[in-house]
Amino acid sequence: MEDIQIHFLEKPQLEDPVFVQGLPGIGNVGKLAAEHLKDELKAVKFAEIYSKFFPPQVLVLDDGLIRLVQNELYYVKRGKGRDIVVLVGDYQGLTPEGQYELADFVLAELRKLGVQRLFTLGGYGMGRMVAKPRVLGAATDAALVKEMETHGVVFARGEPGAGIVGASGLLLGLGKLHGMKAVCLMGETSGYFVDPKSAQAVLEVLTKVLDIQLDFAELEHKAKQIDQITSKLREVERGEEPREGKEDLGYIG
Amino acid sequence: MEDIQIHFLEKPQLEDPVFVQGLPGIGNVGKLAAEHLKDELKAVKFAEIYSKFFPPQVLVLDDGLIRLVQNELYYVKRGKGRDIVVLVGDYQGLTPEGQYELADFVLAELRKLGVQRLFTLGGYGMGRMVAKPRVLGAATDAALVKEMETHGVVFARGEPGAGIVGASGLLLGLGKLHGMKAVCLMGETSGYFVDPKSAQAVLEVLTKVLDIQLDFAELEHKAKQIDQITSKLREVERGEEPREGKEDLGYIG
Amino acid sequence: MEDIQIHFLEKPQLEDPVFVQGLPGIGNVGKLAAEHLKDELKAVKFAEIYSKFFPPQVLVLDDGLIRLVQNELYYVKRGKGRDIVVLVGDYQGLTPEGQYELADFVLAELRKLGVQRLFTLGGYGMGRMVAKPRVLGAATDAALVKEMETHGVVFARGEPGAGIVGASGLLLGLGKLHGMKAVCLMGETSGYFVDPKSAQAVLEVLTKVLDIQLDFAELEHKAKQIDQITSKLREVERGEEPREGKEDLGYIG
Amino acid sequence: MEDIQIHFLEKPQLEDPVFVQGLPGIGNVGKLAAEHLKDELKAVKFAEIYSKFFPPQVLVLDDGLIRLVQNELYYVKRGKGRDIVVLVGDYQGLTPEGQYELADFVLAELRKLGVQRLFTLGGYGMGRMVAKPRVLGAATDAALVKEMETHGVVFARGEPGAGIVGASGLLLGLGKLHGMKAVCLMGETSGYFVDPKSAQAVLEVLTKVLDIQLDFAELEHKAKQIDQITSKLREVERGEEPREGKEDLGYIG
Repeated sequence: MEDIQIHFLEKPQLEDPVFVQGLPGIGNVGKLAAEHLKDELKAVKFAEIYSKFFPPQVLVLDDGLIRLVQNELYYVKRGKGRDIVVLVGDYQGLTPEGQYELADFVLAELRKLGVQRLFTLGGYGMGRMVAKPRVLGAATDAALVKEMETHGVVFARGEPGAGIVGASGLLLGLGKLHGMKAVCLMGETSGYFVDPKSAQAVLEVLTKVLDIQLDFAELEHKAKQIDQITSKLREVERGEEPREGKEDLGYIG
Repeated sequence: MEDIQIHFLEKPQLEDPVFVQGLPGIGNVGKLAAEHLKDELKAVKFAEIYSKFFPPQVLVLDDGLIRLVQNELYYVKRGKGRDIVVLVGDYQGLTPEGQYELADFVLAELRKLGVQRLFTLGGYGMGRMVAKPRVLGAATDAALVKEMETHGVVFARGEPGAGIVGASGLLLGLGKLHGMKAVCLMGETSGYFVDPKSAQAVLEVLTKVLDIQLDFAELEHKAKQIDQITSKLREVERGEEPREGKEDLGYIG
Repeated sequence: MEDIQIHFLEKPQLEDPVFVQGLPGIGNVGKLAAEHLKDELKAVKFAEIYSKFFPPQVLVLDDGLIRLVQNELYYVKRGKGRDIVVLVGDYQGLTPEGQYELADFVLAELRKLGVQRLFTLGGYGMGRMVAKPRVLGAATDAALVKEMETHGVVFARGEPGAGIVGASGLLLGLGKLHGMKAVCLMGETSGYFVDPKSAQAVLEVLTKVLDIQLDFAELEHKAKQIDQITSKLREVERGEEPREGKEDLGYIG
Repeated sequence: MEDIQIHFLEKPQLEDPVFVQGLPGIGNVGKLAAEHLKDELKAVKFAEIYSKFFPPQVLVLDDGLIRLVQNELYYVKRGKGRDIVVLVGDYQGLTPEGQYELADFVLAELRKLGVQRLFTLGGYGMGRMVAKPRVLGAATDAALVKEMETHGVVFARGEPGAGIVGASGLLLGLGKLHGMKAVCLMGETSGYFVDPKSAQAVLEVLTKVLDIQLDFAELEHKAKQIDQITSKLREVERGEEPREGKEDLGYIG
């Protein structure tokens, strides 16, 4: 079996598309943001990626049907060199070696699609509740840093101190070796909950950069649900009995 | 050394056989069910699968002889397109990559045998004692879901929520990519003990689907042994001294 | 880099040699026994095996020189079809896959040397102190079981229940697939200490089987050291202050 | 993707260079020493090594730019057969197999550069504070042991007892198989903190061996910072409130 397989549903012709990636990670910020983007832009799925670097697992959908865990590629045609390719997925690679192989594989596919510019989305764990999340950045070259700063992205000295671990970082690092321009946008988040508010902050930057109009109602709705959960938890911590809705405590990814 | 080796004792000619798999897992439900099926149908072993994805281990049999841990393929000839191939074994692959390789390997062998339809058997851990286990299902296409429902299989919204991990799920997921029709039948089980009762529930569905008559005396006997053990355990939990048979507390797989 | 490398110091011509292996394991019984055998028989080292399946480690010898961790092959020429090949080493493979690869590699070398018969030595952990260790056996065929029984080897129903994990078992399991005759001899041992007494019990069987005379003074000396340590430990457990020799508490392998 | 990639910035012509390596490890002694050496000698970077055996991670520099984690090769031209190649890096290989592959890869590059003599630098964990660190050694041949002893290196019987684990040891062990002469210099260190003082002790030996003049001001400055931290910690242990500077408690690598 090949380590990584890609199944194309369609081979789109795109004009110098930019690439946006959001996978599960801290606060699920990247995944929430990228999925909201592809949903709102009615992006079209054109490829599925399977790999033995993912868990040996199928997901069971509500109709009783299964599908193998995967990453998915979508496209958005906007013309005038503003097409978009979005990668979302159930998992990142499980092992360091798998992470490298997957990032390298995705970059090879992106080069075939004519992608020159990458945006990877993620969360930046603060270890405390964040009222108004800033969006931190890291990039492959100085011009990009400047451009992103004009859109409110914060490039803070020594942040993140531990660097960026996982697919979001690796695409930048390996992409840079291939001459690609790439930015990682990280929404501040507590790290304790999935964080639709942080995902929205990231998307607000990205939509300015890409000149996109997005409706955020869905993310705001999810953010409210999370807010209710966290305030209930705070009540519990203060020794108060929450009266209802414990069953809401699901992981909204 | 090859990653996976298959040693054929015989190369059977089968008519459009269906495939049934049961390997160690939650409550050992799948393994108990598949082994009972092959024992009662006097299935004939025709191949042994060895792999470095299994533990580096030999088993010692009662006569002092050893055998390498393995998976085994059996066939049952019933004619009229109703032949059966059964896979049982000592272990699943130890690593995610090993799980993918093994599932892919088995699917390749099944295609050579003309298999188009797969049944994987397993347990569904409830985290509580289950008096009358239901059989939950997941399948590769909607027609199969409907067919299974007529045999009492439950396709519950959001169950199992975490999907199906391991060989039972992977055969469905990878099989679907190759156009095979596959169902996973999962017997509800506490997850605390091996569960012959759950295995019987799964087999009762499978025998209806495959139109097989099976004697369940052996499984019922094992179920009684487990019942005795669990009631003794409950006595101990209630602070009562069990009077006998602590030595019965073995793992009956 | 190759996964496994063998460096030959010499290419011995041997007459139908038998093979004896003892590697680190429970109570270090196998390693102690095989090293005592090769020392007493003044066996000649003829090959060193390096592998990336061993730890990334060098050992520092007393003269300040290093050597890479390794397995070693020795030969003993006794003529008349009674030559012996001994494998000892610093480590077993670290991963299941490494264990399989190493066992397969060793078996290929043994076939080139004309080996048909294997003896793997190990310990059998009892979880309690053992006054007079028995030697348990497991074998690839029934004739060997019988032969070993005449030398006092015990083939106990259901022992070891968990089978034999690691190199000692794998050489039997993989050797059997290649038509080799193989026995694993396991000395009972507590599993808490290295156990020269158990190693001696194993060697007493092996010397009868191979018709060898061995001096056991060195093993008996080590056994006494261990006895002193364990009696001191028992004093400590009983709340007595041991008066001397805490510095003896080393791991004598 | 290749397991290990090397990107050359320059292909230097060197005269019989010696090789010095210092990577992260106990007390970060080796890394501190090798980086100080290359900084003070104004060594020139000529190659970067990337590998999927490193963590899937990019580092974020103070200007907001990223770089993939890597190992780096520098050279120092001193002429007269006294050229130096220095390897420093962010990480060692994550897995045993990765460690072997990386060491083998580096040795192949060193052979191309004409390197015959290796110095690997590291720390030797004592488990207690060390006022005046000695430098322990281990080497591939007896002549090197003697030579190093004239420079004050201690070759202590049975030290280090567990051998040398990781890149420092492996380069010696694998280098020896290729006929290279190699020494590992290990500065004694507590193992609790990064230890610039121990790094300096190691470099004081190395500069004598290689006939180099080095300024140690920078290392001494770092050592003072660490001393301040550790004395504050001792105050805390004694129950005293440290008055300032808790924020100094960073890991200075």
